[in-house]
Amino acid sequence: MLEGLKQEVYEANMQLPRYGLVTFTWGNVSGIDRESGLFVIKPSGVAYDALRPEDLVVVDLMGQKVEGAYNPSSDTPSHAVLYQHFPKIGGIVHTHSSWATSWAQAGRGIPCYGTTHADYIYGEVPCVKNLTKTEIEEAYEKNTGLLIAREFAARGLDYEATPAVLCKNHGPFTWGASPAEAVHTAVVLEEVAKMAARCERLNPGNSPAPKSLQDKHYFRKHGAGAYYGQRET
Amino acid sequence: MLEGLKQEVYEANMQLPRYGLVTFTWGNVSGIDRESGLFVIKPSGVAYDALRPEDLVVVDLMGQKVEGAYNPSSDTPSHAVLYQHFPKIGGIVHTHSSWATSWAQAGRGIPCYGTTHADYIYGEVPCVKNLTKTEIEEAYEKNTGLLIAREFAARGLDYEATPAVLCKNHGPFTWGASPAEAVHTAVVLEEVAKMAARCERLNPGNSPAPKSLQDKHYFRKHGAGAYYGQRET
Amino acid sequence: MLEGLKQEVYEANMQLPRYGLVTFTWGNVSGIDRESGLFVIKPSGVAYDALRPEDLVVVDLMGQKVEGAYNPSSDTPSHAVLYQHFPKIGGIVHTHSSWATSWAQAGRGIPCYGTTHADYIYGEVPCVKNLTKTEIEEAYEKNTGLLIAREFAARGLDYEATPAVLCKNHGPFTWGASPAEAVHTAVVLEEVAKMAARCERLNPGNSPAPKSLQDKHYFRKHGAGAYYGQRET
Amino acid sequence: MLEGLKQEVYEANMQLPRYGLVTFTWGNVSGIDRESGLFVIKPSGVAYDALRPEDLVVVDLMGQKVEGAYNPSSDTPSHAVLYQHFPKIGGIVHTHSSWATSWAQAGRGIPCYGTTHADYIYGEVPCVKNLTKTEIEEAYEKNTGLLIAREFAARGLDYEATPAVLCKNHGPFTWGASPAEAVHTAVVLEEVAKMAARCERLNPGNSPAPKSLQDKHYFRKHGAGAYYGQRET
Repeated sequence: MLEGLKQEVYEANMQLPRYGLVTFTWGNVSGIDRESGLFVIKPSGVAYDALRPEDLVVVDLMGQKVEGAYNPSSDTPSHAVLYQHFPKIGGIVHTHSSWATSWAQAGRGIPCYGTTHADYIYGEVPCVKNLTKTEIEEAYEKNTGLLIAREFAARGLDYEATPAVLCKNHGPFTWGASPAEAVHTAVVLEEVAKMAARCERLNPGNSPAPKSLQDKHYFRKHGAGAYYGQRET
Repeated sequence: MLEGLKQEVYEANMQLPRYGLVTFTWGNVSGIDRESGLFVIKPSGVAYDALRPEDLVVVDLMGQKVEGAYNPSSDTPSHAVLYQHFPKIGGIVHTHSSWATSWAQAGRGIPCYGTTHADYIYGEVPCVKNLTKTEIEEAYEKNTGLLIAREFAARGLDYEATPAVLCKNHGPFTWGASPAEAVHTAVVLEEVAKMAARCERLNPGNSPAPKSLQDKHYFRKHGAGAYYGQRET
Repeated sequence: MLEGLKQEVYEANMQLPRYGLVTFTWGNVSGIDRESGLFVIKPSGVAYDALRPEDLVVVDLMGQKVEGAYNPSSDTPSHAVLYQHFPKIGGIVHTHSSWATSWAQAGRGIPCYGTTHADYIYGEVPCVKNLTKTEIEEAYEKNTGLLIAREFAARGLDYEATPAVLCKNHGPFTWGASPAEAVHTAVVLEEVAKMAARCERLNPGNSPAPKSLQDKHYFRKHGAGAYYGQRET
Repeated sequence: MLEGLKQEVYEANMQLPRYGLVTFTWGNVSGIDRESGLFVIKPSGVAYDALRPEDLVVVDLMGQKVEGAYNPSSDTPSHAVLYQHFPKIGGIVHTHSSWATSWAQAGRGIPCYGTTHADYIYGEVPCVKNLTKTEIEEAYEKNTGLLIAREFAARGLDYEATPAVLCKNHGPFTWGASPAEAVHTAVVLEEVAKMAARCERLNPGNSPAPKSLQDKHYFRKHGAGAYYGQRET
């Protein structure tokens, strides 16, 4: 089933250790086939250097396993909820990458302090608050996904323009049109988290970049007026 | 003697430089054979890239050498005392890994700020205070082990749920069911120490993660209700 | 066209990932042929590990493409303006290297705290302020170059002695007699940015190095009295 | 001349990039033959990956070249003075290693916060103050050596027990019985400088390790009562 997608999700998973975003098994990538409504995700607790494409697990949008020898990632219900609420995304990444997780542990969103951030993420990376005790005990992973979706709705955020979130005391999720794009954003997020932490120490009263500069960088890479890179004209 | 255990302890020792936890010879791993009451430990001051399985030293629970061409690690008496007081552990690691040692030098335990920590270590990583001048002069290494055991008893800590400690102005010890598991925890500790330091700088008044979240993550990996990874059902 | 220069600029570009100065495509190097008034620059958004010497783009001093299959870097107009205003430079580098960008995001110039800095850069590395909304919208990249040139003129800075600048909320540019020398300065800048940030934390009221020490180090490497390295006598 | 010593000094020099202590040519190691009163040092400004044993330069204790195709390191007069004043040392290292240089730029000595430091360096690593303008202009490198020697005498420091120093706004020197030992101490110093900086941030009012603990660790590795490592008994 979904052999092409499995290969794609496998390759995206293997980028996580390559970019230094995971220690041990602390991360997972999934990718969805929107036509069948099934997604493919890393098995739980399997080491990256032992992982093979055929070990990936196929799951439906309720988070139930459809195919695979292993249990899917314990974070599978979070992925399922995000695919339901964010209909245009094709891939999701969760890691405990060091700098992004430090912001999550601090319970703070990451302000947009510069063009590196603005090139990929429009505005602050939000940090969603803790779940309640009841939400944690009843359906922790599913409620994590619902909390993210609710928060994006409440703040009026466009999930395509803000493809990243931090969960308080936990870590980041990123997403994108494909698994590879979601990993790309996970790398950007880690770099942006590092530089934001450092620039705050250099200037404790630091302000975000001017909106005109953020707009310029975001829209020179995204949308109808984009001119960065190699494009059809 | 104990050839299988020597190989296991050798491999665990070699993980320390691989994970960047040691400079020069600043670390050691031991593993115990509970049946015979003997443990195997790295020889003192031997470089990792020169170390061979047969160089490991066999020691009894009084810290006396039973077999081996070399002197055992100077920290051997600390290991012996921990094996005596923590009867279910099978391996011990001591390093001067950079972030954990920085907390030890600061004389502070590491609060549980997030799920990366809660996944492996239940609650704060304690920092035990300095030995007295007399305790240092009389039997420094042995008294280091006794101080740790006393502190765990005084705080009512479960050494299986809290498999790590910091010694003030010195560095960390970790332990586990096997030498490999003790090394795994040493890697976790270093990563957790790094992120805790960084999140405190991002939010100087930071609080530990809510207890309900810590419990969720610890118990989804440990005990009867665990569901992380691949398990028999 | 300009095959020798393309090779030189290609090699200088490939130094950026080798020295850890770029993530993905976040950087570019150019080099100029002063006789023809044409310069060679990295194509926009092409990955470093896919880049070949023949992919480089030839551009004139108005920033218009003269030869090449790809679009030139989106930062090309900034390079063009700098070549116009700084007539003795032969190469320019732009990166988002982590420490230098953190200073840029903090909106601060980098004081000369030591001899590592003074050996290569005379005095503070300036940080130019943000462009206005109108300047950004009308000709962002060109105006970035003009802002730098204006600021050097206003401060009376010698661009040969101060071969580096930070753009607020953006990142660094460096330059030199050749593309390779501009890359060399980009590496120096990143190292200097890192140590300056750390020394400020060790001593919050830190002062720049005494002028006599800065002069000694700068002039033992530059100008008529230089004696560092291997020289004709 | 001195082929064996050249090989030894060559190998010690090559350890600097291997341990990440130098960028470009920012470091040098020398080693002395006490019998002839000649020492061997890295040539000035020669890249590490181009360096060959036969490129090393032989110099006398006045810092005058005795043999060699290249100019000796510009820091040669500092080495010469240290060999004169510290008669038992056999090797000297100078680097701009990042953490140690950050302390030097901050103008602060490194307190002994833990056993990693106490194992190798007895007490604080001193930071000597700036030279005067006249001292810099007249004989900068020679006066740097004299300043270090004067400071050790004034503070009553034993140069064998404290084999490291920081020069304000400049960087570290370390020394030892041989070139290899001086490099070993340079690695220790960098690691100790990093952990000391971090522990101060974790505990801004941090105190040095108790003297009894410092003594225990220093003397279990040095002197008549040492028992660390493999020793003749």
